[in-house]
Amino acid sequence: MTFDQWTRQVLDRVESALDHYLPAADVQPAPLHDAMRYAVLGGGKRVRPLLCHAAGELTNAAPEALDAAACALEMIHVYSLVHDDMPCMDDDDMRRGKPTVHVKYDEPTALLVGDALQSQAFVTLTSDVPGLGAGLGDSAQRQASLVRELALASGSIGMAGGQAIDLASVGHALTRAELETMHRLKTGALLRAAVRMGALAGETPSAQTLAALDKYAAAVGLAFQVVDDILDVTADSATLGKTAGKDAKDGKPTYVSIIGLDASRVLAQQLRADAHAALEPFGARAQRLAELADLVVNRVS
Amino acid sequence: MTFDQWTRQVLDRVESALDHYLPAADVQPAPLHDAMRYAVLGGGKRVRPLLCHAAGELTNAAPEALDAAACALEMIHVYSLVHDDMPCMDDDDMRRGKPTVHVKYDEPTALLVGDALQSQAFVTLTSDVPGLGAGLGDSAQRQASLVRELALASGSIGMAGGQAIDLASVGHALTRAELETMHRLKTGALLRAAVRMGALAGETPSAQTLAALDKYAAAVGLAFQVVDDILDVTADSATLGKTAGKDAKDGKPTYVSIIGLDASRVLAQQLRADAHAALEPFGARAQRLAELADLVVNRVS
Repeated sequence: MTFDQWTRQVLDRVESALDHYLPAADVQPAPLHDAMRYAVLGGGKRVRPLLCHAAGELTNAAPEALDAAACALEMIHVYSLVHDDMPCMDDDDMRRGKPTVHVKYDEPTALLVGDALQSQAFVTLTSDVPGLGAGLGDSAQRQASLVRELALASGSIGMAGGQAIDLASVGHALTRAELETMHRLKTGALLRAAVRMGALAGETPSAQTLAALDKYAAAVGLAFQVVDDILDVTADSATLGKTAGKDAKDGKPTYVSIIGLDASRVLAQQLRADAHAALEPFGARAQRLAELADLVVNRVS
Repeated sequence: MTFDQWTRQVLDRVESALDHYLPAADVQPAPLHDAMRYAVLGGGKRVRPLLCHAAGELTNAAPEALDAAACALEMIHVYSLVHDDMPCMDDDDMRRGKPTVHVKYDEPTALLVGDALQSQAFVTLTSDVPGLGAGLGDSAQRQASLVRELALASGSIGMAGGQAIDLASVGHALTRAELETMHRLKTGALLRAAVRMGALAGETPSAQTLAALDKYAAAVGLAFQVVDDILDVTADSATLGKTAGKDAKDGKPTYVSIIGLDASRVLAQQLRADAHAALEPFGARAQRLAELADLVVNRVS
């Protein structure tokens, strides 16, 4: 199977699974469920679901278990986008090529969509899923460990904490080290969780496996952000599906503003090499993870 | 032990446990952790933690397991208050007798405090707690079942869904049945989860036990809301620790506006009797639950 075929297959499964794990649009309260589905379905690069499925190949995780983990990750990611786009945060009108939730609906709906998507992620992880839950003790242990990974990565020492540092940084000069700390929490923590959760959804991974995956995820997570910063100044809004040039306009520190465009491109390639190096112990089983590192660095949107 | 002594003992344990399960104020990002602790610690009636501990007496749950469940419930409750008080929602300045989080800090902080408290609730439930997790298969099963209860009760078919119905109802005439549906989700779902999680934290409860507890929780949950509506028109802001008379001012439908003050008082007493009746199968082991039903109905703030 080519990488493109594999990617298409995973994206199709994850889209079906998201449709399944989100309450149907006619379940009460229908307006809230309609808005949750609007926010989640039919858009986005699904980087976290892809990383999760790719990492699951290392531990022979059941595809259905990976779908559940991937959906939970994507729900958390989308909730963070919905809240981040709100007027009191980044105040953005466009996301994934369509109006943001508070523009399409209203602010209270955006707040509740985000809140409810976070809850739904944990509902999803504790659903009765082949290979994941419930019933047998070892699958409950898998569920509990996935919940813990995701909750830690989402919360105040993960994604939400990174957002707090990001907000406090607007208009301030950050050092490169401070910028890295911010991104390690804001986007890195959830990308790392995607990789770890994929591995934890299968046969219990060794400490060495998890350590190697952490190295890989750290490189990919940082590369993801460096490329985001490059695209913010080199791509247009239509390609990105969100407002381009926004970081510079908002006075947000970026890799491009701190080390320049050329050095940022060099850094992205170096991080790609670091990601590949971290995967060496796994050999061919890590093929998809290696290809995903390339995808993250070479993407144009 | 008198009820007052029992209550004091539980509140003391829960306050210590909250202090333990919330990241310390000097953990980075410190400003976010400071605001999370401001929102949670040192205030509130802690009704959900009390219900959780009382229900745990029916299944011999370990006190430490009940503390974790109680803290998770309180974190979810507080996150909902913080978000509900924001300008785009109820726009309230006062909560638990002090300035609301967006007034004391700012709106983005309030948004992130709520988001991070929700995550922290699930971190708490999957912590290594005597009698709850981790390690043994049966305790992982307990963790997974508590996570599922809390996530379902918090999300779009629970608390957040009730908020959505509440927002859509402002300025509309609701029937009593519609009002009950709204409250069953908005406050009822989490109160029910508090009782069920207390029971589930111990020896696996029978289906009959859970069904009886559901009946009890439905009566107490509704009574809680009826009394809230009564207090909104009869108590002053200083006693309530939040703005009194706000529902009427906002054109929100309440029990008092639909059935009147006297009929609301009669209804509250009838629900108290329903709650007691639901506990009959448990005999003396349900003493604290019975006393809590009285507390909910007879409270003055």
